[in-house]
Amino acid sequence: MNQTPHTNKDNVGIVSPQTLHFSQPLQLACGQVLAAHDIVFETYGELNADKSNAILICHALSGHHHAAGYHSSEDKKPGWWDSCIGPGKPIDTSAFFILSINNIGGCNGSTGPTSINPETGKIWGPDFPPLRCRDWVESQKLMMEHFGISQWAAIIGGSLGGMQAMRWALEYPDSLRHCVVIASAMKLSAQNIAFNEIARTAITRDPDFHGGRYLEHNTLPRQGLGLARMIGHVTYLSEDGMMEKFGRELKAGNFVRGRHDGVEFQVESYLHYQGENFSSGFDANTYLLMTKALDYFDLAREYQDDPIAAFSNAKCQFMVMSFTSDWRFAPSRSREIVDALVAAGKEVSYAEIEASHGHDAFLIPIPRYMDVFQGYMQRVSDELKNLSQPSAIPGDRHAL
Amino acid sequence: MNQTPHTNKDNVGIVSPQTLHFSQPLQLACGQVLAAHDIVFETYGELNADKSNAILICHALSGHHHAAGYHSSEDKKPGWWDSCIGPGKPIDTSAFFILSINNIGGCNGSTGPTSINPETGKIWGPDFPPLRCRDWVESQKLMMEHFGISQWAAIIGGSLGGMQAMRWALEYPDSLRHCVVIASAMKLSAQNIAFNEIARTAITRDPDFHGGRYLEHNTLPRQGLGLARMIGHVTYLSEDGMMEKFGRELKAGNFVRGRHDGVEFQVESYLHYQGENFSSGFDANTYLLMTKALDYFDLAREYQDDPIAAFSNAKCQFMVMSFTSDWRFAPSRSREIVDALVAAGKEVSYAEIEASHGHDAFLIPIPRYMDVFQGYMQRVSDELKNLSQPSAIPGDRHAL
Repeated sequence: MNQTPHTNKDNVGIVSPQTLHFSQPLQLACGQVLAAHDIVFETYGELNADKSNAILICHALSGHHHAAGYHSSEDKKPGWWDSCIGPGKPIDTSAFFILSINNIGGCNGSTGPTSINPETGKIWGPDFPPLRCRDWVESQKLMMEHFGISQWAAIIGGSLGGMQAMRWALEYPDSLRHCVVIASAMKLSAQNIAFNEIARTAITRDPDFHGGRYLEHNTLPRQGLGLARMIGHVTYLSEDGMMEKFGRELKAGNFVRGRHDGVEFQVESYLHYQGENFSSGFDANTYLLMTKALDYFDLAREYQDDPIAAFSNAKCQFMVMSFTSDWRFAPSRSREIVDALVAAGKEVSYAEIEASHGHDAFLIPIPRYMDVFQGYMQRVSDELKNLSQPSAIPGDRHAL
Repeated sequence: MNQTPHTNKDNVGIVSPQTLHFSQPLQLACGQVLAAHDIVFETYGELNADKSNAILICHALSGHHHAAGYHSSEDKKPGWWDSCIGPGKPIDTSAFFILSINNIGGCNGSTGPTSINPETGKIWGPDFPPLRCRDWVESQKLMMEHFGISQWAAIIGGSLGGMQAMRWALEYPDSLRHCVVIASAMKLSAQNIAFNEIARTAITRDPDFHGGRYLEHNTLPRQGLGLARMIGHVTYLSEDGMMEKFGRELKAGNFVRGRHDGVEFQVESYLHYQGENFSSGFDANTYLLMTKALDYFDLAREYQDDPIAAFSNAKCQFMVMSFTSDWRFAPSRSREIVDALVAAGKEVSYAEIEASHGHDAFLIPIPRYMDVFQGYMQRVSDELKNLSQPSAIPGDRHAL
């Protein structure tokens, strides 16, 4: 064992993001065309000779390319999914080549609202085209081609990332062998849309928002974005989990009978910290764009609202996971996915994990979650040994 | 049957609010003293000769004195609890004299942040003393004395109103025979506090808030208050209820593949309407004050956090009701109340009502809710006949 966590055997160590420039036009679902774009990404593990061991990680609302390891030895925190990606972890870097990108529309280096619009020479800001999940799939497809990968061993995503993984399975059924969908849904509920709309309203009503042109005004809608994050954060946690973590503990002082000036519950200061932290590092236009993509995602809309018909196109195997206390993407939403897959005659494994962490559970190394995830990924890894023939696509193996 | 709903046999018809001025000082829990105060109230039904048929209605966060009937024949909507108060309804005006007041700190006519501080001659605004549930009980006690009522037949409240009813049962055990606690809790959870704090943050960060002195600046923090209401509203509804009501229906237009300018889900416009409607009629300082009172309510804090010890003081009978889809004040919170009451040897009835309306269910005439409520209140009404002796206090009748 080494001295710092950055070089421990159970993580990928120091990693460096890279950027790829795509100069071919990208046709977007909205009708607009992105003339060129950059993608910032990280890779973990080694691509094997027949390029059959590649895994694509799709990130969620506020995620990015930095999923595992550390950027420097000074980093206090590893990538956002370091719990699941690394040697000996479910997404095992000793078996797989893992590609983790920042989606277009993001604010961590890939082309998005904070980038320069080449046509105007100005920051895109609110004029950045609205995106849909399928646009991310198209952009991820270009990355796939760049690496010369003809089929992903697996595409894996939680939440909004799971929506991208499912969209891949429908749009490019021959391009993946496994689709791992964690804490996701085929579409948002009215309540989910409502929370997103409240968060957007908090942002757009911030006087520093300036119709989305805050950067031109040398400002940021910090208050609104902070508030949006606070709302999001509460909904990503469970009631029981919050009670375990904070209870009704006060930050300082005691209750004087009836007096409450300056008295603050721990949960309040925690939320304010989360909001402030987020609002200085995340782009408000990206937040708006991402939540809209979430709201409008509807897996089966173009299949006459029939999820069975939608999934009939898929050829890959599916692993679906959910968490008992997740009320934003409840287990019932995952069971709808599973039911549709079963009805469509697809191979699907499903695990509902007991967890008190709410939606955030998918980021946390809960033992049973890790065991189930690892077990499934071991199968994916075992298959690699039998994949010397590139023609062995899953459609041939388990057509029903 | 008459032609307009305002004079139907099943409602109390046209009612007029009245105002009482109390010139005696009211000692508040915070240590401050309210030198004098006004209470605006309505009454329904007739006080009987021995004044044994009086019922106190305690309102919730954004409630007020206008609980039943109409203020004029032009009114489109009746009072907020017209579903439960009226001839032949659970709180039957042909049996009971019902007193419904606007609590101090409110913004509907009783002394509160929008009133003039007699010491300064200016609007109280943010300087209005912070209140606790027990302050409302003290103020309600003055009303009780004004009417010469020595014992309430029942004190009834939903949500924050239920907290007041329980506080009455502990502080003045001889002053009520029945305590009806609907969709309430002995204290808020961390999640509840978190939602309240987000709502408060939305208000206080509104540039028109001016540290609570918006009226002096001839403005209102409409955006912040609207946002606060939107947050509250989502949490008062259930996910299933919202899905039933709104689904993913669009307000206008259709999805163009990926295009979303101007497309709006029904649930979004509904929430904006709720927010705007509320923010023009409710006082922001009152909202802050009421949510703080909610957060700090902790039934057993002064009983070494032992709810059984707390309830041991009570002498009345209890009726507790909750609603299956209420996640803000979940059935589990009501069961905690019931368990403590049972352990304290008190008489308690409990009903968990199947309902998809979330926390708002307590305002809705759901058949089983009405039946159970009516059944219990019939008992309260039947008792009146045996109450010729004022000494027949419940402590004597069912001491255990």
